[in-house]
Amino acid sequence: MVVRRMEGTVPQEVAGCPGVTKRVVLGRAEGSEEIALRYFALAPGAETPRHAHDFPHLVKVEVGRGVAVDEDGHEVLLSPGDYVYVASNELHNFKNTGDTPFEFICIVPARGEPPVA
Amino acid sequence: MVVRRMEGTVPQEVAGCPGVTKRVVLGRAEGSEEIALRYFALAPGAETPRHAHDFPHLVKVEVGRGVAVDEDGHEVLLSPGDYVYVASNELHNFKNTGDTPFEFICIVPARGEPPVA
Repeated sequence: MVVRRMEGTVPQEVAGCPGVTKRVVLGRAEGSEEIALRYFALAPGAETPRHAHDFPHLVKVEVGRGVAVDEDGHEVLLSPGDYVYVASNELHNFKNTGDTPFEFICIVPARGEPPVA
Repeated sequence: MVVRRMEGTVPQEVAGCPGVTKRVVLGRAEGSEEIALRYFALAPGAETPRHAHDFPHLVKVEVGRGVAVDEDGHEVLLSPGDYVYVASNELHNFKNTGDTPFEFICIVPARGEPPVA
């Protein structure tokens, strides 16, 4: 059994996404080889890449206001306590549309959080 | 893409665990066939079964105070913002040791949340 606080993890910059940091809170380093739980923080105006990939996301919004942009380009407003499921191969991205940080946890199968080379 | 609120889900009693309810927030009904995100609420004094199983738990404490009991019987104090990883086949349980509700999300691979027969 491993217990962690988000604040005790190291924020990593996300390549190509200025203003976005990622923390792996529960992952391989904690022994979690099947599922990874990451914590993302988006500065005002920041966004994650618009992309699709062969694994799902399970998201819970923690702090701030933002949007998830679905496959059709529709923006879904998000606030703390919202849970979002993004299917494998579904085009998506997340944006901070507010003027304070927008933060969420994002759970993926391990193939979505590969080991650092 | 599916967006849910915990409050919009149906609390289910957990057999053999008085005072414990479970809500499947993101699961098969939302299209999530690989990973399930459940929300547990334990009334004061309530606890989950002491057991082990062939899948991991990734937990985040949301509300209240409680403990996770590890394989050796040690109690680890938990409060909101704590993340817990319980490995496959590790003996464990969770207890509400406070006098208010103790609530956490618990993420499992789909085999840990089988379809209702």
